[in-house]
Amino acid sequence: MKQKKTPSESLATTTEMVLPNDTNTLNNLMGGQLMYLMDVVAAISAQRHSGRVVVTASVDNISFSQAIALGEVVTLKAQVTRAFSSSMEVYIQVFSENIPAGTKTPTNEAFFTFVAVDQTGKPINVPALVPETEREVDLYESALRRRQLRLVLAGRMKPQDANELAAIFK
Amino acid sequence: MKQKKTPSESLATTTEMVLPNDTNTLNNLMGGQLMYLMDVVAAISAQRHSGRVVVTASVDNISFSQAIALGEVVTLKAQVTRAFSSSMEVYIQVFSENIPAGTKTPTNEAFFTFVAVDQTGKPINVPALVPETEREVDLYESALRRRQLRLVLAGRMKPQDANELAAIFK
Amino acid sequence: MKQKKTPSESLATTTEMVLPNDTNTLNNLMGGQLMYLMDVVAAISAQRHSGRVVVTASVDNISFSQAIALGEVVTLKAQVTRAFSSSMEVYIQVFSENIPAGTKTPTNEAFFTFVAVDQTGKPINVPALVPETEREVDLYESALRRRQLRLVLAGRMKPQDANELAAIFK
Amino acid sequence: MKQKKTPSESLATTTEMVLPNDTNTLNNLMGGQLMYLMDVVAAISAQRHSGRVVVTASVDNISFSQAIALGEVVTLKAQVTRAFSSSMEVYIQVFSENIPAGTKTPTNEAFFTFVAVDQTGKPINVPALVPETEREVDLYESALRRRQLRLVLAGRMKPQDANELAAIFK
Amino acid sequence: MKQKKTPSESLATTTEMVLPNDTNTLNNLMGGQLMYLMDVVAAISAQRHSGRVVVTASVDNISFSQAIALGEVVTLKAQVTRAFSSSMEVYIQVFSENIPAGTKTPTNEAFFTFVAVDQTGKPINVPALVPETEREVDLYESALRRRQLRLVLAGRMKPQDANELAAIFK
Amino acid sequence: MKQKKTPSESLATTTEMVLPNDTNTLNNLMGGQLMYLMDVVAAISAQRHSGRVVVTASVDNISFSQAIALGEVVTLKAQVTRAFSSSMEVYIQVFSENIPAGTKTPTNEAFFTFVAVDQTGKPINVPALVPETEREVDLYESALRRRQLRLVLAGRMKPQDANELAAIFK
Repeated sequence: MKQKKTPSESLATTTEMVLPNDTNTLNNLMGGQLMYLMDVVAAISAQRHSGRVVVTASVDNISFSQAIALGEVVTLKAQVTRAFSSSMEVYIQVFSENIPAGTKTPTNEAFFTFVAVDQTGKPINVPALVPETEREVDLYESALRRRQLRLVLAGRMKPQDANELAAIFK
Repeated sequence: MKQKKTPSESLATTTEMVLPNDTNTLNNLMGGQLMYLMDVVAAISAQRHSGRVVVTASVDNISFSQAIALGEVVTLKAQVTRAFSSSMEVYIQVFSENIPAGTKTPTNEAFFTFVAVDQTGKPINVPALVPETEREVDLYESALRRRQLRLVLAGRMKPQDANELAAIFK
Repeated sequence: MKQKKTPSESLATTTEMVLPNDTNTLNNLMGGQLMYLMDVVAAISAQRHSGRVVVTASVDNISFSQAIALGEVVTLKAQVTRAFSSSMEVYIQVFSENIPAGTKTPTNEAFFTFVAVDQTGKPINVPALVPETEREVDLYESALRRRQLRLVLAGRMKPQDANELAAIFK
Repeated sequence: MKQKKTPSESLATTTEMVLPNDTNTLNNLMGGQLMYLMDVVAAISAQRHSGRVVVTASVDNISFSQAIALGEVVTLKAQVTRAFSSSMEVYIQVFSENIPAGTKTPTNEAFFTFVAVDQTGKPINVPALVPETEREVDLYESALRRRQLRLVLAGRMKPQDANELAAIFK
Repeated sequence: MKQKKTPSESLATTTEMVLPNDTNTLNNLMGGQLMYLMDVVAAISAQRHSGRVVVTASVDNISFSQAIALGEVVTLKAQVTRAFSSSMEVYIQVFSENIPAGTKTPTNEAFFTFVAVDQTGKPINVPALVPETEREVDLYESALRRRQLRLVLAGRMKPQDANELAAIFK
Repeated sequence: MKQKKTPSESLATTTEMVLPNDTNTLNNLMGGQLMYLMDVVAAISAQRHSGRVVVTASVDNISFSQAIALGEVVTLKAQVTRAFSSSMEVYIQVFSENIPAGTKTPTNEAFFTFVAVDQTGKPINVPALVPETEREVDLYESALRRRQLRLVLAGRMKPQDANELAAIFK
């Protein structure tokens, strides 16, 4: 196994058409269906980074400010932003395209965390993530702050110990 | 339309069996499938509170620390914790039951936010939520803090203005 | 294993939104899709009573007099009415809600019978059912008549031996 | 529109493979999934007889005495047995085939009733059914007795008025 | 195992209603969904001929010149046209019915090839196919030409060796 | 609308996990399910080239020589190879990845043809395709031969008029 990998090695892209069963009564993609698609593409990205079976460990706050309509095309791009022993944070970007109208709009972004597991389901270490572009470096560095927030929200870190996170409130 | 409603008026419960297509290669329920189920039951709860069509506005951090296995029964309970003009926060609890083993385990909890919309898709006011039990009062009060976190994370509130939230970091 | 259980111990509730693929060309929930939902929730109820894997043994006459429309919410409640050695009769009530219209209507009721099986698929005894409320006592007592009808219709009991059943034709 | 049709004019056949999501934890086809398949093929048969959109009106008692396993092939045959003004009774036979084992087994039979409707959803008359074979004549004649049972069970006929039905209890 | 079988012994028929999720934004059955249905019914036909598990080996050119609309009924008929050691060519005919309009239209035909495999997934010989009707004899004889085209297109036969096929270009 | 587009402007990529319901009894992806995925991604590619709603017109011969197993990741890449008035040929490549094993294998390639349609469903002209790379030029030129084969197979061109195609048999 490689000791280090770049974000582009874990890039996973998927493209789907919004079908009737995916939509609510306003004919827009349901939030839950979009999260299902996010989870699948992010898991593939985390599998590619780790070379392992992975399980979803957590999902960060996601906001849904743009509706995606029936018949539109949804594109999801996922890549790993940082690895921590056996866990990986994956950044997912969502775009909707209304092809006849010629529009393509960024609609959502999300951070999912996955844990790599061995054949018995126990966590196992993964390669380090080495960011390359400026954007990847930003995501790598801010991953620490998001991780503290996750730990605080899960009751596994005291707020006063979340130094990077607390700094933004001062 | 009623001016006020209690949490129990918006209670929605659903019970599902975990089927093969819902599971990953470890035969456990995929995180994305569980979020899909959460979104549907929480939307029904928000519909019951508002008497309106609702759209998912945001999902708070969710952690997945307990695996739910193929063949187990998943129960989801959702009720509104607080209303803010046209939006409602819904609290969802998830339990898994392995019936032959006689176990029932709380596995996840989550907060989803929905916006009520009129026939043209525009936001419309909803009844106030009046908590009754001690637990409901707790959820009602802490909703303010979670809302500030959502606004900060969405870049729509400055961290230093999030007073209730910042307090916990001091 | 408990020797006796009450109906409320086996109560199972599920709530679903009617999606496009569930409907016929009149945009109403198809009878076959509703029976699928009944079977799942009733099986969960029978599992809860027996603590066992269960298989559907029979379905009594169901009538569909009320249409349930696309976008409506369907609620199904199931509980065991009576146990006979390894089999259990489950009573299912179906309600449809048109939430924006503020209506909730009982639409169907049904009786399904399940058999509890062990790991090899062989029938195994289940706890007795002890009814508590007046309604539960009624369902418990009439279960005998429904069972005779099932046996007669399956050609496993002669009509003239179905005493409780025959009484109603005199 | 024809005034009369034979059963063979409404014959509908379907053949399906049992897939993982159709099965319970014993790897057998779930009763609810089989009823869904029955409803679709029977509705097609009733459409062919009536030349109309049809809605499921009722389902008679079905018993499930034979398990159908994952990977087996299920064949369903449906044809109308008798027409009553706007309603039609459809007889459905189910067979399972384990092709590598070379077995084909009749597993279930059922009677579904459908009502033909016009564009506004109102019941509309259908052609009479004229049975041809001896078996079809039997099904045609016994349809009256089954109809009385349905009406009695739905509380729309008094047991003592169900002459054909009551006869079998004497 | 029989040494020889007729086409009618492998006949498989299926009938489906076109549901919303099967359709594109013009409300017509998607080509990909129709090919999925073709593959399932053709596999059942090849299973019936061979008495074995089968895997799809190739699909010949299919053209989609007739749209099939939401709510229409699709009928697929499949039967084996010729066997070659372990492989079988299956001919599939597709019809669409608009029942209220009283129309039934042949919409597509296709040839799929399947290979019979044993428990370890290795190819295994199948019975010879003995055509009976004139139409079956035609399909049997032309199967050789289609097979040469398949081999040429797959790069497994040189065009100049495809004698039956080349003849039609002279 | 642009008059000309390059193949890379129509590139569409999708990545899927093989789930239990997608597989046959050997636990491999069914051919029909793969063709469904091909059709969706190729339609998105043709939509991107034409800026229009598109319908599947034909599918060329596809061979399935490599099995794709349950739990593997399937990647499909589609791009337009040539445009002819209102129709477009799309080339699709399929790869399977067994991530824990570290393997990625090209498994299939296919050519689908789509027709662009206006709001009334009538064919409408699309931009010309201008190939850039050597591989794209090859695909562009050979598209003529594949088109002749399609027309001959559909009975819409006499074999002796298919000059480019016939040449390869001499």
